[in-house]
Amino acid sequence: MKKVVTLGEIMLRLSTPGYTRFVQTDTFDINYGGGEANVAVSLANYGHDVYFVSKLPDNQIGQAAVNSLRRYGVHTDYIARGGERIGIYYLETGASMRPSNVIYDRAHSSIAEADVDDFDFDAIFKDCAWFHFTGITPAISRKGFEITLKACEAAKKHHCTVSCDLNFRKKLWTTEEAQIAMNQLMPYVDVLIGNEEDCEKSLGYKPQNVDVTKGNVEAIHYHNLFTEMIKKYHFQYCVATLRESYSASDNGWSAIISDGKEYYHSRRYDIRIVDRVGGGDSFASGLIHGLMTYSTKEEALDFAVAASALKHTIPGDFNLVSIKEVETLMKGDTSGRVQR
Amino acid sequence: MKKVVTLGEIMLRLSTPGYTRFVQTDTFDINYGGGEANVAVSLANYGHDVYFVSKLPDNQIGQAAVNSLRRYGVHTDYIARGGERIGIYYLETGASMRPSNVIYDRAHSSIAEADVDDFDFDAIFKDCAWFHFTGITPAISRKGFEITLKACEAAKKHHCTVSCDLNFRKKLWTTEEAQIAMNQLMPYVDVLIGNEEDCEKSLGYKPQNVDVTKGNVEAIHYHNLFTEMIKKYHFQYCVATLRESYSASDNGWSAIISDGKEYYHSRRYDIRIVDRVGGGDSFASGLIHGLMTYSTKEEALDFAVAASALKHTIPGDFNLVSIKEVETLMKGDTSGRVQR
Amino acid sequence: MKKVVTLGEIMLRLSTPGYTRFVQTDTFDINYGGGEANVAVSLANYGHDVYFVSKLPDNQIGQAAVNSLRRYGVHTDYIARGGERIGIYYLETGASMRPSNVIYDRAHSSIAEADVDDFDFDAIFKDCAWFHFTGITPAISRKGFEITLKACEAAKKHHCTVSCDLNFRKKLWTTEEAQIAMNQLMPYVDVLIGNEEDCEKSLGYKPQNVDVTKGNVEAIHYHNLFTEMIKKYHFQYCVATLRESYSASDNGWSAIISDGKEYYHSRRYDIRIVDRVGGGDSFASGLIHGLMTYSTKEEALDFAVAASALKHTIPGDFNLVSIKEVETLMKGDTSGRVQR
Amino acid sequence: MKKVVTLGEIMLRLSTPGYTRFVQTDTFDINYGGGEANVAVSLANYGHDVYFVSKLPDNQIGQAAVNSLRRYGVHTDYIARGGERIGIYYLETGASMRPSNVIYDRAHSSIAEADVDDFDFDAIFKDCAWFHFTGITPAISRKGFEITLKACEAAKKHHCTVSCDLNFRKKLWTTEEAQIAMNQLMPYVDVLIGNEEDCEKSLGYKPQNVDVTKGNVEAIHYHNLFTEMIKKYHFQYCVATLRESYSASDNGWSAIISDGKEYYHSRRYDIRIVDRVGGGDSFASGLIHGLMTYSTKEEALDFAVAASALKHTIPGDFNLVSIKEVETLMKGDTSGRVQR
Amino acid sequence: MKKVVTLGEIMLRLSTPGYTRFVQTDTFDINYGGGEANVAVSLANYGHDVYFVSKLPDNQIGQAAVNSLRRYGVHTDYIARGGERIGIYYLETGASMRPSNVIYDRAHSSIAEADVDDFDFDAIFKDCAWFHFTGITPAISRKGFEITLKACEAAKKHHCTVSCDLNFRKKLWTTEEAQIAMNQLMPYVDVLIGNEEDCEKSLGYKPQNVDVTKGNVEAIHYHNLFTEMIKKYHFQYCVATLRESYSASDNGWSAIISDGKEYYHSRRYDIRIVDRVGGGDSFASGLIHGLMTYSTKEEALDFAVAASALKHTIPGDFNLVSIKEVETLMKGDTSGRVQR
Amino acid sequence: MKKVVTLGEIMLRLSTPGYTRFVQTDTFDINYGGGEANVAVSLANYGHDVYFVSKLPDNQIGQAAVNSLRRYGVHTDYIARGGERIGIYYLETGASMRPSNVIYDRAHSSIAEADVDDFDFDAIFKDCAWFHFTGITPAISRKGFEITLKACEAAKKHHCTVSCDLNFRKKLWTTEEAQIAMNQLMPYVDVLIGNEEDCEKSLGYKPQNVDVTKGNVEAIHYHNLFTEMIKKYHFQYCVATLRESYSASDNGWSAIISDGKEYYHSRRYDIRIVDRVGGGDSFASGLIHGLMTYSTKEEALDFAVAASALKHTIPGDFNLVSIKEVETLMKGDTSGRVQR
Repeated sequence: MKKVVTLGEIMLRLSTPGYTRFVQTDTFDINYGGGEANVAVSLANYGHDVYFVSKLPDNQIGQAAVNSLRRYGVHTDYIARGGERIGIYYLETGASMRPSNVIYDRAHSSIAEADVDDFDFDAIFKDCAWFHFTGITPAISRKGFEITLKACEAAKKHHCTVSCDLNFRKKLWTTEEAQIAMNQLMPYVDVLIGNEEDCEKSLGYKPQNVDVTKGNVEAIHYHNLFTEMIKKYHFQYCVATLRESYSASDNGWSAIISDGKEYYHSRRYDIRIVDRVGGGDSFASGLIHGLMTYSTKEEALDFAVAASALKHTIPGDFNLVSIKEVETLMKGDTSGRVQR
Repeated sequence: MKKVVTLGEIMLRLSTPGYTRFVQTDTFDINYGGGEANVAVSLANYGHDVYFVSKLPDNQIGQAAVNSLRRYGVHTDYIARGGERIGIYYLETGASMRPSNVIYDRAHSSIAEADVDDFDFDAIFKDCAWFHFTGITPAISRKGFEITLKACEAAKKHHCTVSCDLNFRKKLWTTEEAQIAMNQLMPYVDVLIGNEEDCEKSLGYKPQNVDVTKGNVEAIHYHNLFTEMIKKYHFQYCVATLRESYSASDNGWSAIISDGKEYYHSRRYDIRIVDRVGGGDSFASGLIHGLMTYSTKEEALDFAVAASALKHTIPGDFNLVSIKEVETLMKGDTSGRVQR
Repeated sequence: MKKVVTLGEIMLRLSTPGYTRFVQTDTFDINYGGGEANVAVSLANYGHDVYFVSKLPDNQIGQAAVNSLRRYGVHTDYIARGGERIGIYYLETGASMRPSNVIYDRAHSSIAEADVDDFDFDAIFKDCAWFHFTGITPAISRKGFEITLKACEAAKKHHCTVSCDLNFRKKLWTTEEAQIAMNQLMPYVDVLIGNEEDCEKSLGYKPQNVDVTKGNVEAIHYHNLFTEMIKKYHFQYCVATLRESYSASDNGWSAIISDGKEYYHSRRYDIRIVDRVGGGDSFASGLIHGLMTYSTKEEALDFAVAASALKHTIPGDFNLVSIKEVETLMKGDTSGRVQR
Repeated sequence: MKKVVTLGEIMLRLSTPGYTRFVQTDTFDINYGGGEANVAVSLANYGHDVYFVSKLPDNQIGQAAVNSLRRYGVHTDYIARGGERIGIYYLETGASMRPSNVIYDRAHSSIAEADVDDFDFDAIFKDCAWFHFTGITPAISRKGFEITLKACEAAKKHHCTVSCDLNFRKKLWTTEEAQIAMNQLMPYVDVLIGNEEDCEKSLGYKPQNVDVTKGNVEAIHYHNLFTEMIKKYHFQYCVATLRESYSASDNGWSAIISDGKEYYHSRRYDIRIVDRVGGGDSFASGLIHGLMTYSTKEEALDFAVAASALKHTIPGDFNLVSIKEVETLMKGDTSGRVQR
Repeated sequence: MKKVVTLGEIMLRLSTPGYTRFVQTDTFDINYGGGEANVAVSLANYGHDVYFVSKLPDNQIGQAAVNSLRRYGVHTDYIARGGERIGIYYLETGASMRPSNVIYDRAHSSIAEADVDDFDFDAIFKDCAWFHFTGITPAISRKGFEITLKACEAAKKHHCTVSCDLNFRKKLWTTEEAQIAMNQLMPYVDVLIGNEEDCEKSLGYKPQNVDVTKGNVEAIHYHNLFTEMIKKYHFQYCVATLRESYSASDNGWSAIISDGKEYYHSRRYDIRIVDRVGGGDSFASGLIHGLMTYSTKEEALDFAVAASALKHTIPGDFNLVSIKEVETLMKGDTSGRVQR
Repeated sequence: MKKVVTLGEIMLRLSTPGYTRFVQTDTFDINYGGGEANVAVSLANYGHDVYFVSKLPDNQIGQAAVNSLRRYGVHTDYIARGGERIGIYYLETGASMRPSNVIYDRAHSSIAEADVDDFDFDAIFKDCAWFHFTGITPAISRKGFEITLKACEAAKKHHCTVSCDLNFRKKLWTTEEAQIAMNQLMPYVDVLIGNEEDCEKSLGYKPQNVDVTKGNVEAIHYHNLFTEMIKKYHFQYCVATLRESYSASDNGWSAIISDGKEYYHSRRYDIRIVDRVGGGDSFASGLIHGLMTYSTKEEALDFAVAASALKHTIPGDFNLVSIKEVETLMKGDTSGRVQR
């Protein structure tokens, strides 16, 4: 399969075992994850030739993060080593009406303080077919923005398709900062992923009275929003996931894709959640794989939704599923019968 | 916040990991818990100045029990040390239609064989605003009853509000024994917590054809019962939780409060259960906090029900939630969306 | 209670902890299991005098398998020791729409390469009341078939009731091989357990448009099928479980029994699944116990269904429940209230 | 091999994992053990037909204790069920100069409150070749003494060889109580195991300036002591282990046997300790096996010392070693080379 | 016992289980520790009234650190809450010739960025008898130095004895920076703890050809060094531990104290190491307790050395031993015999 | 660094946690390992460009084995997928005088049944500098021998240096079979690793009265043996490790190298063992790295011995150490002082 590049931060995830709270636990489960790294692992799993670009400290914790990517077949040749530290996020998994909690400790990480010169983007994007980034990398620091911008330029120069998952993070920047930065990056983007709140906060597009908490999402409403955005930014596709949050244990899950002319609202899944962190990233990677390998946007979206529905049943940030498993679910088998 | 005192037994809880049965496991998870200790920890968590009064053996297992309380901010100054042993309960967590099992091994514990002289109740209740006990302490032994009675007298002398959770335990005493003892304690009680079965067995109040197993409980029925009891005992409030037991995994949960004039039936929650032991105690502590800090019984009850709904999602006896988490749920957000 | 014999393979089961996937885990949980061994343990648990007959390698892993049976009271006197290896199956537990996966590594096991001479069937079946086998043992090897046939002959000679759970396994043999072998064994069988697919593949009975995945099973349809089969094979009873696979986490569960004249469709349970492996075997053992101790086929079936519903909540292959627990559920208490 | 009976208490052992202290741990490792149960398991492991006689509560914790014995092949037919509780001991494993700590919580256990009538000693000792007990059982209660006495009488009546491990426990009785009781039991004993302190405290034999802590034990000194004792009590053999306690991690280990005429001081081992609890019991079982199967007391003792040296490397109370492993060590191979 | 104050940083310690390396592990064991916090816990354990002063982030990880101190009886009233993050150190435990590895990630911690105004030192040192700090706090930041200086001034104003453990950390500052800062703090110090390397790097005192790696330390040499230092700084005592590092598993351990007139070299212990992190802190706390409660410097030092020898056998930073355990070892019992 | 190829079997290693025995454990720790895979990982760790060649089943257990290699940077491009199963070995870790036990279950593995055609040796050995194999691969099956022979031919054709670790395994073949096969492979070998027993059994070279168990090995004796062998086979170097097996916990460790003219006996280490499996392989990889990068055979050997001494302190088959760590030890620092 084809070469894909993703760029961003991979963090050490420290999660409490079972449903224990932060103040109860004596051990942390270790995973490594981050939006673009999660996309990289998932695409490597689907057989693509994936390179993850980042910077990690030159110590054994940084090495463990590199190993976590190599383990699942992601190329780490372009991960610079150096800087102060690896970013961390602490995760406490919720249940029923108790939400999961995330505490970030990511300031001053190696990638947040990396230089554009740490990366040889011409080498990185040579023969590359697809480049994916998220709105998190430009948010982590001024340098993060500069690196993302350089990467976008290089990607376009090498004729990559570029996808962006907006992922607005209020703890990293203000809406003003976000809109200035993200609007500079949008010209490079072919495929945009983002819900209404992301679009409003990252780009300045105002959503109209949709209460996402309640789940009364409307595909048509999204289609209208996306049609406008496509007119302005010339995206090929705009895509959003529609999460219905009944509780920390049960969610509804579907997605919508629009090309500015017509939209498709995918099949909807009822999910019993094991680990929902990385759900959005597994959707992005499913979508990228779908758009690279299926002939229609409808199939691509169905693959992405099935893939990300499965992610919610897998511990850790990474979506460790095969194409075959996703396709079985896509075709309608939700029976969960034992595979012998 | 104000000084609160609870008195009773804290036991070593030995529970099987996951859903394993007693005969399968090679390890026990360790927690410490008991009705009044659970109330103490929860109130300390809400910021109150809480003292737990008990007696524990003067060995390192007793010390570990003391530490489990200190860890969560409960004052242990008035825990006497000595006696033979700490009481134990073994817990096997059920799932679906398989119920949880509890095996008690609590006879001959230090608190069951403690003397009234082990405690300086005048010092204990100085400047105390609230005293809480349950029907378990008078049930564990004759001395347990005497200590409870002395504590009630001292609490009243120091103008504490007194709450009692009836908690009838058929393995500890007969209904005859219970009724004689509990009726001696009722004159000291301002806030009574108990369901119909407790009221009947502990006090002699006969419930009328209510099948608690099926969940067809009626608020009005409770109000009538409570109105009569308030007339007789001059309680300020009578309160009961209404558990609808669909299975060991799923319960409905609400509560009713009556002041003899009017009643309030709280919001109802559907709970996916992680650990339901201590659910009633988390309700009692939520109620005490609610009555101490909110201006209406309705708010107090809503706080108590939300707090105890959350408890069902937390491993161990203790309800480790913050006021803010309870209030978020009280205000209606059951979405369980990740808190970043 | 009476002597019961089961014969077959017991395997080392290596399962990933929690919901982790094979490629994520650093540890395996160890259990031992296999259709006939699972039946043996469950019957020993109900108080029967059970002998499990098999062959295991003469090393400490083989010994651990023997010990796993002794631990739960199964007699292991007739387990031959020797051969190359113990069969293994790897298990990854699914959740929601992600199915559980089983990878078998059972070829060349000691029992698959055992000789008829390894077993003294006259001694084994002396004073035996019931013999149980499954369609797996004749499938594992030619020798497995020969041993099963010899056992059937001996069992009949000693006037045992014989039950067979068809359990067609497509990875072990073809339908042609299965039908030749199984038809040779049917004359010895009194109680047959099998769903439509089993009957078709193992015996050549063709099911009519029943989509088992969807759960739209029809008792009447089964009754017709079973009536025909009873005519042909002179079974006393034909029995089938009806699993409705909503997902890997939630199943509906009931069963049907027919004596060729009338049928009974049991109560139906909604199950939240902890571990469904061994569910069918727990049904078989429940049925054997039921037919040995209750006076009607209806009660026997109700016991079997309740017993196997409970199994789905217990980790491991073995159904570690007591008669009392099954009977409580049989009588309708699905409340899951804590047993103190 | 021959039938052997041991009688005593089996306790639930709750130990902290690794080298954690009681106040640090969140889990307990579960084992079951007790002097006579440990001897039973070890002898079953050597192929003897062993029955352990005791009483355990009729709950699932009692059942788990029964299962722990069955798992290793001990017959549990004569374990009475009933009474209040299983005795417990808490264990914290030491290291280097930090000693292991044991906290007992064994009062009021089912066996301590058992009646002589709970046991049919005629059935128990039928065809029995050897009976083993320790000084712990008569110490746990008056009833414990009575049961032990009855057992000794019945054992002698059935021509068993009787062995006793003195095991004086200062927390269970005074030296006065011990000496009265133990002197009543000595007439039945053929093989006595005990160090100087045991002999002094349990029987009234005064040791002469031997500092056991320092390890300067003298075989000749023991021989003299034993010769006197054999004259008085007509023992066949007196045996003692000689532990040199350098630290909680390193011990020297040997033993001496005397028949009143000549003595033999075994080979001495330097042991790196994994778990020394049950070390003395593994010696007793090794000695019993040795005396039952070897032709000389020297070989018997060498087997016992090698067996118990190996026990110190195995977690839990039970000595899970084979005759072959012990004999390899006996013959001098301490190289610890990997067995492939 | 008397009030003691310690001031400094408490970090989250993330250590690999067993002897696994950073790149192997999937879980971290959680402990909290730091020089002055370790001293606080140990002194609380000896019964002193200890306050630990620091600043921690206002999130649940910060709360867990607070709880770890409360659990062992340390008062946390003066821990300010706020700032960005808790400092972290990663620990990989070595064995044999493989050393333990520590990776620090402590920059930007709440305490490193705290203000002098975060602490009310007059309240803190009211009725305080002893103040302890280390050379780490002034090294973590300029603000850390200022806070330490203010604390020293306040401590002296309230007539506390002041002890300082030099603990030079080359990753935190240069020798030049250290010497300027530490020389400003020395006038407040009564008891100085530091080995030759610390004295040279922190204060500018040059050691003479002592190869600490080899363990050929000389008490007399230290006495001379300390005598000079006492002349200059007017310390009451200078103290140093003498570690002989044979390997990561085995160390020799003793200490020397000098009052400028005479010195005492303590007993020496051979230690089998479980966890040597916090060994120096356990010495400091033992010394403080010793000097506060024994009448001679010799006894104080012997207590400190025995206490810290024991620490090496306990997992985690904290020295969880009782006075009684230390005194038993002090009196010479290194036998490690089981305490029943 | 340069391209290196190793060829052989990688197995699933299932080991009991801590020092538990096979019959005690409820979980297995998972590692993957095998002589040539271990060498590959270690060389990748030293920065070489390493390819491991083998065949693994096309299931998720096979994938996990592939991932275990990728994780540590080994290229897995030439691992064929298919066949029946992955070989397994069960490991029980010994302590003190109790040896570790290995139970092999490796027959019928994918690599044992692989074809020469599964591998494109011309592609594999293109630009390769070094090829390493062991005597295990030709022993596992006739096909294993053929593949090894083909690999040797191709390696020589591409001018690789070839090393062979004899590793005679008596459970895989007879000495006759071994000698026929290995003598066919020797002409391709430049560097031979093997102790006396290996040389005798694999090649027919008779050792002279050396009791390897006792550790009285003599360098001179080896030099003589090696000189003869070099004359016959034209090896460049012959190398042997000298293990002194004091117990399963403590070993002495050194090595000897001879070029037929002069020999060098390395420094000797006393090792406290954590996991000795893979010790020999870590020596082989250290030697290969040493001979590829150092200028003298003495330095190469010292590197190899230090590297493999360190391996004994690391759990699992793989030697996860850096060049820097090995060189620090090589230079004499065995102090094990904490690296901060």
